Amino acid sequence: MTNPILIEVTRGDRVESTHRGAIVVVDTSGKRRAAIGDVGARVYPRSAVKVIQALPLVESGAADRYGLGNPELALACSSHNAEPRHVAIARKMLAAAGRSEADLECGGHAPMDKAAADALVRTGQKPGRIHDNCSGKHSGFICLACALAADPAGYVRPGHPVQREITAALAATTGADLGEPAVDGCSIPAYAIPLDKLALAFARLVTGEGLAPQRAAAARRLVNAVHAEPFMLAGTGRFDTEALELFGRRLFLKSGAEGVYCAAFPDLGLGVALKCDDGSGRASETLMAAAIETFLPPSDAEQVAFAGRLAPSVSTRAGVGVGAVRPVAGLVAALRAS
Amino acid sequence: MTNPILIEVTRGDRVESTHRGAIVVVDTSGKRRAAIGDVGARVYPRSAVKVIQALPLVESGAADRYGLGNPELALACSSHNAEPRHVAIARKMLAAAGRSEADLECGGHAPMDKAAADALVRTGQKPGRIHDNCSGKHSGFICLACALAADPAGYVRPGHPVQREITAALAATTGADLGEPAVDGCSIPAYAIPLDKLALAFARLVTGEGLAPQRAAAARRLVNAVHAEPFMLAGTGRFDTEALELFGRRLFLKSGAEGVYCAAFPDLGLGVALKCDDGSGRASETLMAAAIETFLPPSDAEQVAFAGRLAPSVSTRAGVGVGAVRPVAGLVAALRAS
Repeated sequence: MTNPILIEVTRGDRVESTHRGAIVVVDTSGKRRAAIGDVGARVYPRSAVKVIQALPLVESGAADRYGLGNPELALACSSHNAEPRHVAIARKMLAAAGRSEADLECGGHAPMDKAAADALVRTGQKPGRIHDNCSGKHSGFICLACALAADPAGYVRPGHPVQREITAALAATTGADLGEPAVDGCSIPAYAIPLDKLALAFARLVTGEGLAPQRAAAARRLVNAVHAEPFMLAGTGRFDTEALELFGRRLFLKSGAEGVYCAAFPDLGLGVALKCDDGSGRASETLMAAAIETFLPPSDAEQVAFAGRLAPSVSTRAGVGVGAVRPVAGLVAALRAS
Repeated sequence: MTNPILIEVTRGDRVESTHRGAIVVVDTSGKRRAAIGDVGARVYPRSAVKVIQALPLVESGAADRYGLGNPELALACSSHNAEPRHVAIARKMLAAAGRSEADLECGGHAPMDKAAADALVRTGQKPGRIHDNCSGKHSGFICLACALAADPAGYVRPGHPVQREITAALAATTGADLGEPAVDGCSIPAYAIPLDKLALAFARLVTGEGLAPQRAAAARRLVNAVHAEPFMLAGTGRFDTEALELFGRRLFLKSGAEGVYCAAFPDLGLGVALKCDDGSGRASETLMAAAIETFLPPSDAEQVAFAGRLAPSVSTRAGVGVGAVRPVAGLVAALRAS
């Protein structure tokens, strides 16, 4: 099926560009509360499932063994900006396991935060693996390997004990038949998972329903850590961090590359998953904002604070607004009605 | 109509993301040689029409009056990287008209070239208007204003003599009824123009057919300038520059924001215009590469040199190829057959 246009980008009185996609909202039984587009299609969730990938870190006892608190656990779920605190906490996690950033196998890239990237340039440093947005997750993987008494070397490969644990957590939380993996940007296995199963996993993560008691407890601990430390999940100016700071415990969410976003509304017992066909981040963020607006009707103050996410402005470089990224007419109503 | 998927992005053995769009190839009479998708739809061509917007600079005599040679004229058509030579030539153009970068009204942003951007950071400089990718075009506008004996102030506004000249050039080359403009990212008027009319304009630019003699001569001079100075049109690592260096005078092309690309094959007397619905640059570049491969069958050596543009690799951050951005099966055949 052809997914519908969900987000449009305007300039003047015309639509300049359009984004298609699918979005699904399910309860803990998997019953659909809203579904637009092909919500049974398999997508690579990318970084949106980092919280699931962090479950074994807690379940294995590694988090306790290495004294990982809220900042460390939130960072293990993060796609961080490599701001100084992110980097410091990643280094602390590695040191707790007696390891260092030399053990990271996540590649590396310039910090996502411009100020952090500029600081490296000014001091003549090259970005390292520790600055990779996945370095917190990978530091957690290394802690897990050490707690399992496995050699961390090769922890990104499918057969490694770390990846076996993660694959089991993904299969259990989503209930999906995972099949053979591809490779993610940070070199770990990337499984293609039906969108509605991703939404189900998120409903389970925030309620514990459908999970074994130990796994439910681990999920609760990770979700609490993210709520206690929203900065650690992303960073300055990032959608995830801003939305968590604004909506608090009523919302849990995590972005992924290539237009994926997952979320949950703990009070409602609902999970959300969406994918924009073209992989656009501006579209997936605006679509997630529409879902949040629909299911967590914001107060007037929240509406004002969230306005820039609900319909981000398209501006000239001289700073004049000339258009917007916005949900198509009727999207919020369609989400509410379906 | 719903445009078809033209470009897909793979990861492992799956398609992770898809890009829809339209592409049209026409001769100088407007006859379609290839057409996929809604090629009559109006799109904002954005920077793809900078060469048309530079026609009045030559036609008015401003280029001669201020001694603008190939580097200056190519820069007037450019979306440049703000590498040192781009910035120096823009400053030279402004100085020739007795003006300075303080007269630029294009906003400003960090240089598109990473080394140039880093150089500013290292020396504690903020990016200025001169670093805006449109500063060469705007320097040309200021030269035009001065040659017209008009006050350059406000040259970005619709009623200014500069914009009246540009609008006339757009109307004449495209043959389109332009309607009311929106505002482009660099603050000048942005007209929505049918895709097939953009392709026609490019066929005319490189052949002179369908243009008044003076305008045809101006187009020839600009096209020659770009061929003499492909670096000035974009810069290091950019598709436009690399393609011009590889295919030389057999190709003329210019990228635009939001997934637009225009080109021409001078020897064949054909113009090309394409727009990816979602505004994706990776998609518009790969689609343009497919059009080039179709109409300018590359030699073996060209094929090797162009391979990274025909199907750009999707890699892990550790540098391992795990997928590709590529035309959908049958696209080249469809372009050839239609």
